[in-house]
Amino acid sequence: MFDWKNLILDALAEDIGRDDVTTSAIFLSPAPGKALLIAKEELVLAGIEVVKKVFSAVNQEVVVKSNFLDGEKVEEKKVIAEITGNISDLLKGERVALNFLQHLSGIATLTRKYVERVADYSVKIVDTRKTTPGLRILEKYAVQVGGGRNHRFGLFDGVLIKENHIKACGSIADAVKRVRIRVPHTLKIEVEVGSIGEVKEALASKVDIIMLDNMPLGKMEESVKLISHRALVEASGNITLNTVYEVAKTGVDLISSGSITHSAPASDISMIIKE
Amino acid sequence: MFDWKNLILDALAEDIGRDDVTTSAIFLSPAPGKALLIAKEELVLAGIEVVKKVFSAVNQEVVVKSNFLDGEKVEEKKVIAEITGNISDLLKGERVALNFLQHLSGIATLTRKYVERVADYSVKIVDTRKTTPGLRILEKYAVQVGGGRNHRFGLFDGVLIKENHIKACGSIADAVKRVRIRVPHTLKIEVEVGSIGEVKEALASKVDIIMLDNMPLGKMEESVKLISHRALVEASGNITLNTVYEVAKTGVDLISSGSITHSAPASDISMIIKE
Amino acid sequence: MFDWKNLILDALAEDIGRDDVTTSAIFLSPAPGKALLIAKEELVLAGIEVVKKVFSAVNQEVVVKSNFLDGEKVEEKKVIAEITGNISDLLKGERVALNFLQHLSGIATLTRKYVERVADYSVKIVDTRKTTPGLRILEKYAVQVGGGRNHRFGLFDGVLIKENHIKACGSIADAVKRVRIRVPHTLKIEVEVGSIGEVKEALASKVDIIMLDNMPLGKMEESVKLISHRALVEASGNITLNTVYEVAKTGVDLISSGSITHSAPASDISMIIKE
Amino acid sequence: MFDWKNLILDALAEDIGRDDVTTSAIFLSPAPGKALLIAKEELVLAGIEVVKKVFSAVNQEVVVKSNFLDGEKVEEKKVIAEITGNISDLLKGERVALNFLQHLSGIATLTRKYVERVADYSVKIVDTRKTTPGLRILEKYAVQVGGGRNHRFGLFDGVLIKENHIKACGSIADAVKRVRIRVPHTLKIEVEVGSIGEVKEALASKVDIIMLDNMPLGKMEESVKLISHRALVEASGNITLNTVYEVAKTGVDLISSGSITHSAPASDISMIIKE
Amino acid sequence: MFDWKNLILDALAEDIGRDDVTTSAIFLSPAPGKALLIAKEELVLAGIEVVKKVFSAVNQEVVVKSNFLDGEKVEEKKVIAEITGNISDLLKGERVALNFLQHLSGIATLTRKYVERVADYSVKIVDTRKTTPGLRILEKYAVQVGGGRNHRFGLFDGVLIKENHIKACGSIADAVKRVRIRVPHTLKIEVEVGSIGEVKEALASKVDIIMLDNMPLGKMEESVKLISHRALVEASGNITLNTVYEVAKTGVDLISSGSITHSAPASDISMIIKE
Amino acid sequence: MFDWKNLILDALAEDIGRDDVTTSAIFLSPAPGKALLIAKEELVLAGIEVVKKVFSAVNQEVVVKSNFLDGEKVEEKKVIAEITGNISDLLKGERVALNFLQHLSGIATLTRKYVERVADYSVKIVDTRKTTPGLRILEKYAVQVGGGRNHRFGLFDGVLIKENHIKACGSIADAVKRVRIRVPHTLKIEVEVGSIGEVKEALASKVDIIMLDNMPLGKMEESVKLISHRALVEASGNITLNTVYEVAKTGVDLISSGSITHSAPASDISMIIKE
Repeated sequence: MFDWKNLILDALAEDIGRDDVTTSAIFLSPAPGKALLIAKEELVLAGIEVVKKVFSAVNQEVVVKSNFLDGEKVEEKKVIAEITGNISDLLKGERVALNFLQHLSGIATLTRKYVERVADYSVKIVDTRKTTPGLRILEKYAVQVGGGRNHRFGLFDGVLIKENHIKACGSIADAVKRVRIRVPHTLKIEVEVGSIGEVKEALASKVDIIMLDNMPLGKMEESVKLISHRALVEASGNITLNTVYEVAKTGVDLISSGSITHSAPASDISMIIKE
Repeated sequence: MFDWKNLILDALAEDIGRDDVTTSAIFLSPAPGKALLIAKEELVLAGIEVVKKVFSAVNQEVVVKSNFLDGEKVEEKKVIAEITGNISDLLKGERVALNFLQHLSGIATLTRKYVERVADYSVKIVDTRKTTPGLRILEKYAVQVGGGRNHRFGLFDGVLIKENHIKACGSIADAVKRVRIRVPHTLKIEVEVGSIGEVKEALASKVDIIMLDNMPLGKMEESVKLISHRALVEASGNITLNTVYEVAKTGVDLISSGSITHSAPASDISMIIKE
Repeated sequence: MFDWKNLILDALAEDIGRDDVTTSAIFLSPAPGKALLIAKEELVLAGIEVVKKVFSAVNQEVVVKSNFLDGEKVEEKKVIAEITGNISDLLKGERVALNFLQHLSGIATLTRKYVERVADYSVKIVDTRKTTPGLRILEKYAVQVGGGRNHRFGLFDGVLIKENHIKACGSIADAVKRVRIRVPHTLKIEVEVGSIGEVKEALASKVDIIMLDNMPLGKMEESVKLISHRALVEASGNITLNTVYEVAKTGVDLISSGSITHSAPASDISMIIKE
Repeated sequence: MFDWKNLILDALAEDIGRDDVTTSAIFLSPAPGKALLIAKEELVLAGIEVVKKVFSAVNQEVVVKSNFLDGEKVEEKKVIAEITGNISDLLKGERVALNFLQHLSGIATLTRKYVERVADYSVKIVDTRKTTPGLRILEKYAVQVGGGRNHRFGLFDGVLIKENHIKACGSIADAVKRVRIRVPHTLKIEVEVGSIGEVKEALASKVDIIMLDNMPLGKMEESVKLISHRALVEASGNITLNTVYEVAKTGVDLISSGSITHSAPASDISMIIKE
Repeated sequence: MFDWKNLILDALAEDIGRDDVTTSAIFLSPAPGKALLIAKEELVLAGIEVVKKVFSAVNQEVVVKSNFLDGEKVEEKKVIAEITGNISDLLKGERVALNFLQHLSGIATLTRKYVERVADYSVKIVDTRKTTPGLRILEKYAVQVGGGRNHRFGLFDGVLIKENHIKACGSIADAVKRVRIRVPHTLKIEVEVGSIGEVKEALASKVDIIMLDNMPLGKMEESVKLISHRALVEASGNITLNTVYEVAKTGVDLISSGSITHSAPASDISMIIKE
Repeated sequence: MFDWKNLILDALAEDIGRDDVTTSAIFLSPAPGKALLIAKEELVLAGIEVVKKVFSAVNQEVVVKSNFLDGEKVEEKKVIAEITGNISDLLKGERVALNFLQHLSGIATLTRKYVERVADYSVKIVDTRKTTPGLRILEKYAVQVGGGRNHRFGLFDGVLIKENHIKACGSIADAVKRVRIRVPHTLKIEVEVGSIGEVKEALASKVDIIMLDNMPLGKMEESVKLISHRALVEASGNITLNTVYEVAKTGVDLISSGSITHSAPASDISMIIKE
């Protein structure tokens, strides 16, 4: 039930405000046109559906024909999509459509790099809650399309017991117990740990997922062995494209990364009008 | 009349959903706490006001004391702000506050680099409409704080006549004439040009601003001389940190850049809870 | 991040519309008053916080002092709360406050009956998604307060694979596999089964929860033994106050009931204005 | 101008949240399906239009063909409607559609019982403002469909002078006078009375409707005679299915009941998917 | 439950948009100021409460002290109110506050003229539904303040059977009958008539109010006599300040006028800043 | 991106509320009808598009065929448009459609009078921000249609430095300087002046527009000569139909008037239903 409509209309309202004064002054009557979306660099496409929704929010009669599916690699100079409609509608929707498409493709492209880097292992690259306010669902979609997996969407669909939760309860055991009473039984329980001792405590409490937070590689490996499939193991903490391979080697099940969402540069895409 | 309230509440709703199930299950009664926002790398701060608004949206009693003003450089390891309130409220607001702060500081930090690079000239670095949907006002604020200037906010508060507008009218002269009749006389008229010939046409039409789009450096210099302060001159088109100095040298008044908003990596900032 | 404010304001708007024409015509100047909420029958209280929010939405200066906590049993004729403020504000909030309180207390009261009926066993009474549109969070809160537990809140925070999902995939194994790829790893997987054979399939797929749907008591008992704590076991399907004890006896972990939310009669509570 | 759209979308959003994760993971491509709504007990149907709107909010292409009109009695095991569309859309809309339909049919079914009980008299069964927050229009519609009549919808479309209004003015005469000055002349004036003396006062003030609140049967009869068609007479106060016939016998024009809306058990209806 | 907040915020957003760019650029730090609202012509004041709400929506600390109550006559050059706060907040709220105040005072001033013109008679001047979209409640309030009375607020709180309704039913009798079955018994029934014959039909149907639509004065007088207090009598149809006295003389109970709301010129009021 | 939808729906909701009770009670099944919009006096049409949107918001199947374009003069008794659809839909939309159309045509008609009065000169009649809260875009549209031009839409798309801004800075020069730093370079700078001295200061600061506020005609003429096309010249301050010709004669470029929007009487238009 993701609310596309408001997201798109708010973005258009932000850009167009009371009117695109230039275009309205110049195009006094409708004139048919055609525009092309061109990849100016190699990218993994994400968000073509958003582009369609943006233009159809401007005018239902605009037609977007895409040559690629989300998740496909697009080489430099390729035409991503062809858009037909009134030129003034194409101009009104252009910037918002590109802002979405470049941002999401940027995320998918960077995620794909992480995924390809660890292809030797069965480990999954997962996202975090470090997303742009308002765009989490789209950004997490771009991660999937890039080949990554989704961690919990928010604070409501997964339990993650962190250091401060544990401190407040006195022990991991106690924190887990409190959660079991009050949280729907449909959610798994994950605990963030920083030492082998804490890994053991977490195992004793029969948690479902153990997050190794900023652990050195050696400790990670040790933890993986200790856990021995009794819980899912997630590695977390400033893991980069340079270090991700070594982390994968430790045998963890999941590697989570904030940068795939919060620091992916926009993909270079432009719109050219042909008439 | 920027609508802070909905922006903040929507961001919190996106993250918290029906509830922070972990924190609600663990903190059954209020417990006072203190948190620190720490710069994990050097950055130009932007968004401390947003941080305050996020936490006070969670609970009006949370107090954020910042040690720096927006626009100030913060060195690695410095404490950006101290936050006091119920631990559970600190935990509920943490991620959203950081998502805003890291994003905006990233933009200010990158903008500052551009600004410092061209410090020898009186040219202004200006932003574009290539912003994240929903966050334009904040991102443009971060550009200002980074030392840049703002271009028009949207399609409503500035006239920019582009190639397709000109084609539809037959000539720059005609396009400018149509705009003059229908657009409030309070808005300046800018024309995008690609050649010396078009610069001359624009001058003949007495436009207020001339945008040199993707012009080679030599042509830019020639245009600047030709225009000779009869209009503001803006350089545009894939100008990077590497090329910006050479562009500034041509004597243009304004250099616009999309990457300062759409491709700035998030600044590394984290929140640590002390009690 | 539950949106109390809109819920309360919408309810008041629905009732008051453009104005409480009678009260506005009669009370031309403010007159202090006091009102009592009286239990007209024995009940388990739920929603006293909503009552406070309703009256403070009418006028922030109305004060509600409650003599009971949510979850406490209130005997017939007892005063639940004392409300002071302008008489006109008391009259304007009365109906909406009572509509919430009577409805939620009705749910808590009925839930408590189920919980007490099965007190001999460690089984939990859990709610369902059979709630009144718009009021799910409040109704699930009333279930907790009544002594019940919460099942998933919606389709987003728990996986429940039903007959039609299984049919579409060909087998439980296949359905579970598809889900594992696409759903956040933070959610448990529950499967609805109708026969011992399906119980075995579910166990083979290592699901987290098995729902026995409309199974005869004998089959339930057999299933519980077969599962033997390898998954949580939930009994479901028209279980009433009359049958719930027998179901509990089978050893299931959870018994879910739609009637505690959709068919609980409103508790009889009235508001009396003094002086 | 009832706002169906938001009501339905909010209800779906409450249930589906960011996504029906199970169904989205399993149905990767559209698959046509058919579902039946089955009455599991005898009921008076109310809300078939809501069902249509729910499914078409999920996907405009879902088609609901109903075999009964609202207000008709449906026997146990009868098929109320046939729904065709993508199976995943049927599954996404199922719970919300049923939650509305079961609730409204429950109200219509109970109202019909009251109406049938007093069929010997010309008295009307009318509803009250004791409705579920957010659903008043639908619930009052269900009352009509069940054969009842609607009292005022809220505080804005009818004047009802109660005890506290009278106290504040000193007398019924004075309260009526104040109201006559300030309230649109298009609204009738009703006064709540508890004694024969008050009935006389109300008559002297030429009110339009007199509500006999919690009066013993004998006093009611006396009041009816006294009033002698100079005003409409409404009986009110904990009138049940057991007592309603005796009340009707007194000759009152209207009997109002809160339980037909706030305590009607949901009708038992289920959805079965056939493909 | 009139939604002041959105009305005021929408009006400010319409005027201020993303920012008052002039004031924000000039007032970099807060500076205390005082402003006076001055009547530039004699007027009947209406809307001083709106002025307060506008300024407090800009900044809660702005204080508005009014020297007059709504409904009072203010002579030319008198100070209506004194406003203190930051100068920048005074400037940001000025235009919106004045737009409301001038509009509402214009309506009150014109209404007062009608009321004074017919002071010899007990007839009431009432408004219509001919109001500015979005401002009906305020405009009807201004009518009251001017000494007029309110007709129904909308199509929901009064029955008005017009020519087309009658045609569709065949007769007034039939139309009234249909309405009596379906409309809450709390609403009076008014019928629009154009001839003595129709007056008689309306009387036969025992309607509560009879509207004489565009009747010549002689027929009006005849109708009033015929009706003889068996129903309220309303005169309607292009009645002006010039004709209203003659209409009043016919003995009708109510005279409705659209021009008091839709054609009242704004009162001349200005704001002067003193520091 | 003007939000027609909410404007129209809010206006209908304001009028219809929960239902048009009369029409719903009488028209139980759809009946086709035709209505005519008739000019009851000569007018300049504005808002026919709004009429279409109102009726199609009531029911998408209502068809409005207009015989005139916005901006055309319509003589008394002419049919402005023909509307076909269900009679009940015509009745439900009638009042709201007329409220918009009469208001906007009133503005266009009055604006046209000003424009015709100054036809001997090239001066433009421009509007102000003195508009009805919520309707600014429509009212400014009506001004255009009447032959006027639009000043800035709000505080965001034009800089207007007034007396208080100047005082706060010490001089016009300083105020202009501050604005140049912080306001997008796409907006022109206008200064309000009251004396020849201030005109000179404004010229020295190279502002784009000079507003002569409440200046006597002689001073205006002197200012126009002094400015000599180095800036646009706007005359402002209680200019009426009687004085506008003399003002035009001074040679100013623009004359702004608040009364064309805030004091235009509604045009007399009515809707008549045929069969």
